[in-house]
Amino acid sequence: MSAHRGGPAVDGSVAQLAPVLEAGGPVLTDLLDRCEARLGEVVAAYGEPLGEFATGTLAAGGKRLRPVLVFLCGGAASSGAPDAARGAELGDDDGLVRAATAVELLHMATLVHDDVLDRAALRRGRPTVYRTGGRVAATATGDLLFSRAFAELAASGEADAVRALSSASSALARGELMQRADAWSPHVTPERYLARCELKTARLFAAGCRLGALLGRTNAAAADPLAAYGERIGIAFQIFDDVLDVAGPAARTGKRRGTDLLDGTVTLPLILARRRDGDLQALDLRETVTDPAQAEAVCDRIAYTGALGEARHEALRYVAEAKAALADLELPDGLRRALDLVADGVVERYA
Amino acid sequence: MSAHRGGPAVDGSVAQLAPVLEAGGPVLTDLLDRCEARLGEVVAAYGEPLGEFATGTLAAGGKRLRPVLVFLCGGAASSGAPDAARGAELGDDDGLVRAATAVELLHMATLVHDDVLDRAALRRGRPTVYRTGGRVAATATGDLLFSRAFAELAASGEADAVRALSSASSALARGELMQRADAWSPHVTPERYLARCELKTARLFAAGCRLGALLGRTNAAAADPLAAYGERIGIAFQIFDDVLDVAGPAARTGKRRGTDLLDGTVTLPLILARRRDGDLQALDLRETVTDPAQAEAVCDRIAYTGALGEARHEALRYVAEAKAALADLELPDGLRRALDLVADGVVERYA
Repeated sequence: MSAHRGGPAVDGSVAQLAPVLEAGGPVLTDLLDRCEARLGEVVAAYGEPLGEFATGTLAAGGKRLRPVLVFLCGGAASSGAPDAARGAELGDDDGLVRAATAVELLHMATLVHDDVLDRAALRRGRPTVYRTGGRVAATATGDLLFSRAFAELAASGEADAVRALSSASSALARGELMQRADAWSPHVTPERYLARCELKTARLFAAGCRLGALLGRTNAAAADPLAAYGERIGIAFQIFDDVLDVAGPAARTGKRRGTDLLDGTVTLPLILARRRDGDLQALDLRETVTDPAQAEAVCDRIAYTGALGEARHEALRYVAEAKAALADLELPDGLRRALDLVADGVVERYA
Repeated sequence: MSAHRGGPAVDGSVAQLAPVLEAGGPVLTDLLDRCEARLGEVVAAYGEPLGEFATGTLAAGGKRLRPVLVFLCGGAASSGAPDAARGAELGDDDGLVRAATAVELLHMATLVHDDVLDRAALRRGRPTVYRTGGRVAATATGDLLFSRAFAELAASGEADAVRALSSASSALARGELMQRADAWSPHVTPERYLARCELKTARLFAAGCRLGALLGRTNAAAADPLAAYGERIGIAFQIFDDVLDVAGPAARTGKRRGTDLLDGTVTLPLILARRRDGDLQALDLRETVTDPAQAEAVCDRIAYTGALGEARHEALRYVAEAKAALADLELPDGLRRALDLVADGVVERYA
């Protein structure tokens, strides 16, 4: 469950981003550049040391998957839509850039607070704010990023947009709490796991898609289907991240396997494996998994049950649902292709 | 510096609230009731356990000074303005109630996070969320309250309003960090102390006043002077709280004297006392003040220098500036009287 926060895992699970960028064309690339520049401006607007911490968080990067969703759902794809069709509406792009920036800032804020709660020293191979500045600086930096996210979106003047972000932000907080409440529990059901994925991951994906529809050039009626699409790929994304935490390989994810087991996060692979392996169900993870080597051993055991394939299958089911949510929408060909590629990209295909 | 967070200190420093309520009349009382009801609705909208934590934070109360400021700056005072003048504009009050609710939610969010950072078990005589639910629950509850604050304000549809709240929220985070950076420092100047008060306390007061002006029935041109008024009383409020932390008496403030000394917060009384007492300047507080009895002894020593009177004088200077900021505004008599009473109330008068 922690892997969705990390860069290497993100790299892994969005390996298909290059084709998405190709499908989105120069319009998408340009908007992503503007989002990156805006993120830099926002965090640089603070003096030391907050600006420095926030800049470090920004520089740690990530694939900016959420901004990609905002832009695509805002209709930002060159192919299939003649440039002339954009014409007078170009000014709207400022709203899209702000929305994408806001969503990424909120995501960054939760990463910084998660690192405090996890007492994490590294993220994406770089020292965390928690490590560099301590818990006070990290809590304050997270709060600052939260604030800037809303300020960025407020400039759009769209109350619906601020509400969408706020709702996602509330969901994140509730999901975080749910995750900790369920730590090490042997009784977490797949349904409860999925409810947690929705709160902690999918609602922000959905909000990004909704913001794109609200502030971009898509039909306003597209907001609900696009948000449904975003929610489904958010869940698929999280399931796949949780699979990667068990499956590795470490060379690809950039971290040892089993970090979720070590911090007690009960994910779908473990839940499914417990159903197949009674001894695993009976194992008290809190007592027995206390170092990385033990965690890797349990990962092997989970994999041995075949639970990883079942979890991947579940993720792919959400990918299919995401695409189906778009079925009745009229979308330019290039845009639909890009959205399908994103959906495929969050869950790499396995033979 | 912590006292501004506590109820008893708030009780002490807003002892003049009764006359304010009288001056505001039934219009103000009615709006405060609606704000209280709305706060209850917002936090009750969450399931267990977040809703429970948030409800506990809400029930811990406080004088709702910030909502009072929102309402008064929104023109909500009965006397001096005939009821007929409100007529068709009554609908606007929803915006004011939302703004007041948002400001109080943001204030509550910072209290909950502060308690995590302070590892505080009690606030206003009740167990904190940190104590009851642990740091994860408290961090998430604070994040949730942050989110709800912005959602509440977003419903107003005023981008300027969301920006004002976001700006105050950013300032709070920066002020928090500044306070911790300066902990136990012998080099904090009065100027730096005042800059911290502005960030950590006064900017939210100012935002409340600005929101009232933006969403209420006052002239839009009044927003800047009203915000200036709010900022000045915010600084006065903080100085006076810091005086109370040294002066007590505990029977009135509800806590032992010297809590700021124990957590290393360098406040104006200490800064001024150090200038008057070279031995105090040379004292390493981190080394020598490690229990409440030692803290009380240093409080006595600060009081002995006469620094408390000087600090109170400084606070009163800000009260006078607050009133002066309103001098050129055309305000109904009842409203001006209420605003003056709030200003006087944040710093009790001393002979």
